[in-house]
Amino acid sequence: MSPTPPQSRSSHVVLTSHPGLVHSQALPVHWDAKDPLVRGPIVASLTDASRRNAIGTHSGSYTIYRALATAAGALPVDHRPDLTNTSPVEKMGPFPAWYSKEAPKEQGGDPGAASKIVSIDPWGAVVSDVFKSYFEKGYDIRPSIAVTKAHIHMFELVDAIQKGRLQVDGKILRKEQDVVVTKAALEPVWYLPGIAERFKITEGELRKVLFQETGGMFPELVTRPDLKVFLPPIGSTSVYIFGDVSAISDPSKELTVRVHDECNGSDVFGSDICTCRPYLVHGIEEAIKTAQKGGAGVIVYYRKEGRALGEVTKFLVYNARKRQEGGDSAATYFQRTECVAGVQDMRFQELMPDVLHWLGITKIDNFISMSDMKYNAIVKSGIKIINRISIPEDLIPKDAQVEMDAKKAAGYFTTEVIPDAEALKKAKGRGLNE
Amino acid sequence: MSPTPPQSRSSHVVLTSHPGLVHSQALPVHWDAKDPLVRGPIVASLTDASRRNAIGTHSGSYTIYRALATAAGALPVDHRPDLTNTSPVEKMGPFPAWYSKEAPKEQGGDPGAASKIVSIDPWGAVVSDVFKSYFEKGYDIRPSIAVTKAHIHMFELVDAIQKGRLQVDGKILRKEQDVVVTKAALEPVWYLPGIAERFKITEGELRKVLFQETGGMFPELVTRPDLKVFLPPIGSTSVYIFGDVSAISDPSKELTVRVHDECNGSDVFGSDICTCRPYLVHGIEEAIKTAQKGGAGVIVYYRKEGRALGEVTKFLVYNARKRQEGGDSAATYFQRTECVAGVQDMRFQELMPDVLHWLGITKIDNFISMSDMKYNAIVKSGIKIINRISIPEDLIPKDAQVEMDAKKAAGYFTTEVIPDAEALKKAKGRGLNE
Repeated sequence: MSPTPPQSRSSHVVLTSHPGLVHSQALPVHWDAKDPLVRGPIVASLTDASRRNAIGTHSGSYTIYRALATAAGALPVDHRPDLTNTSPVEKMGPFPAWYSKEAPKEQGGDPGAASKIVSIDPWGAVVSDVFKSYFEKGYDIRPSIAVTKAHIHMFELVDAIQKGRLQVDGKILRKEQDVVVTKAALEPVWYLPGIAERFKITEGELRKVLFQETGGMFPELVTRPDLKVFLPPIGSTSVYIFGDVSAISDPSKELTVRVHDECNGSDVFGSDICTCRPYLVHGIEEAIKTAQKGGAGVIVYYRKEGRALGEVTKFLVYNARKRQEGGDSAATYFQRTECVAGVQDMRFQELMPDVLHWLGITKIDNFISMSDMKYNAIVKSGIKIINRISIPEDLIPKDAQVEMDAKKAAGYFTTEVIPDAEALKKAKGRGLNE
Repeated sequence: MSPTPPQSRSSHVVLTSHPGLVHSQALPVHWDAKDPLVRGPIVASLTDASRRNAIGTHSGSYTIYRALATAAGALPVDHRPDLTNTSPVEKMGPFPAWYSKEAPKEQGGDPGAASKIVSIDPWGAVVSDVFKSYFEKGYDIRPSIAVTKAHIHMFELVDAIQKGRLQVDGKILRKEQDVVVTKAALEPVWYLPGIAERFKITEGELRKVLFQETGGMFPELVTRPDLKVFLPPIGSTSVYIFGDVSAISDPSKELTVRVHDECNGSDVFGSDICTCRPYLVHGIEEAIKTAQKGGAGVIVYYRKEGRALGEVTKFLVYNARKRQEGGDSAATYFQRTECVAGVQDMRFQELMPDVLHWLGITKIDNFISMSDMKYNAIVKSGIKIINRISIPEDLIPKDAQVEMDAKKAAGYFTTEVIPDAEALKKAKGRGLNE
């Protein structure tokens, strides 16, 4: 037995809630409403079950650690955050994309079109402000977005300064060689009818498959069709903004954007089998340059390790690539992933543009990505892309040439020569023992 | 309606399974058994529900993306991975810690003590090998650990070479200035009775709180007390090994270890409010040096962003710290986190040493961490720590001095002077608009 027994919410465990149960104080959600008070707050906190109007809870996968904290007796079940001084350091929005069905036509609004944002809560950063009246009534509403400022220091940027590619301006890139940024973290908040529409399936199918294919996570997906909002236990998204925040949504200002999917092996440890960190840093360099010209640069970092297959699957695929007959080759690059994972990619770029719409982006001057899936998803969502910038050849690590050739041949954007079937056999990755 | 309707597992949705349901082919799990065939495979795949002997499924939080892939019609529900050529590139174990209750006393075994590994499956990397007979009977067993090789290239290491702190040896640190590593990814696989024991609570309390405090995730936690294994939807852990893998578990060889908790803002973007990336890189430098002397270095990277509070909470706390009366200060560093999050820290280092035991570590010569919580958890788990290495003062970014002073005063290890109450007020963090 525990020296500090965990506080329990209730000794009677309710396995799954049903619409028949009394949830008298749960507020309705009108997802596309322009007025946040009509849209209504998302209440996913656990301090008062009768007021919850969402499935799941806050902090993405960290909800498991919070549960452990309670189990260990460290966190009282009735804790409510003190949100004093936590509000965003820069005003972001509201933008017409936050309520695209109710926005004027000249601002991109269309009552008949799909919502532009379905996987985050656009009002998630300003809950203390816009839902003040509900806080006063005792509703426990949590921010799902936070906006702060930081200074970043990267050795690659110091190198770029020394080589003359970047210039110190004293304000964005300071003489101490650090860079001033505004940054945001965004938790997933899924509006299920909108997610289903994005994937062109029915809401019922989506709910059933999300429940069944996770091994039975959240029965409410099936039993509570009245609850339209789901906070899944997945990673958050980070946004790094260079330059004047208001320039992001101003179509007269230049904007550079990279949408980057996490790759811990390269982003943190500099593994040379892919181009992830070099391309990310190139994006940051371009973002700084645009900011220095009076525009803005945006890097969006999505937690989608290994094409959202996770790192275990990624490493299994590395081994299969390196050990296959003939060695690692661009010709069989995607095939090896599919053998192990069943698909080549699970990132589903369909949801990715939501963060760009939250930022009020309507046009991107410089898009730092070669991915056709990303390009298509962004353009389809109504954002104009003017230039596509592929990774400079001299930034591609030698062992990453296999990936690069395979991607070009598969239709990724490039201004270089697209490798044909013969050329695809040429680039050979390093063997496991080289 | 979808042009490619998602394949469905069954049109009849079973909300939660109960022991009464027939699970005739589900194999028993004897967690602490020395013989893997007695221990039994963990079957958490979804292709045959009758054979599942665990709650949840593989890939941690990426299970949600896999469900989306199925919903979108991209992934057949009956896909089974082709594991050809995916097995570990280096032999790791089995070590006595994998079956500590059945291991000989002189190898640290103790039938009365708690299991040394409860949050990963020590046999997770070698399922194709040790459970071959079950694969032949059609069981769909998935690896929960993968081991591969890589070359890493970091600008900081190039800088260390140029400054003479690191020497190229041609084998570990190559003349191209990249470093050869063996690396592993490990998914969480929780043995619930062992987790409960680690936190000194009953298994029933743990199960109930895990269910209730996640907003009702996985009713099986409550309805299936016979299922003892849970694969939670949280991030995986990565291990980077420098030098000879066999040196890790050889007590006669020198071993350097850093256990690092993810901090995206510093690890990837170089934010200067904390010491995360500088300390990580210092750990890598020391790991390389030890490997070059014939020992080994190990960096373990845990996905526990913002002390496992998640990045949204972390950024809210940054704002509260920077905006509080008197500005950001070491004296109130922990307090601001507690106001927002309810606790100072949710990382629960109690489970952290499991990865070290999977690696067969029994003693650490150089422990690159100042955390008392980490030190205590490791020593308590039976691993000897000889030297503790704090971060060199010249690697601490100026704005991170607040964190550093607060941690030293709170009892973190340091060879420097511990700041008193007066000194704690001195270090001031940068304001939001500086």
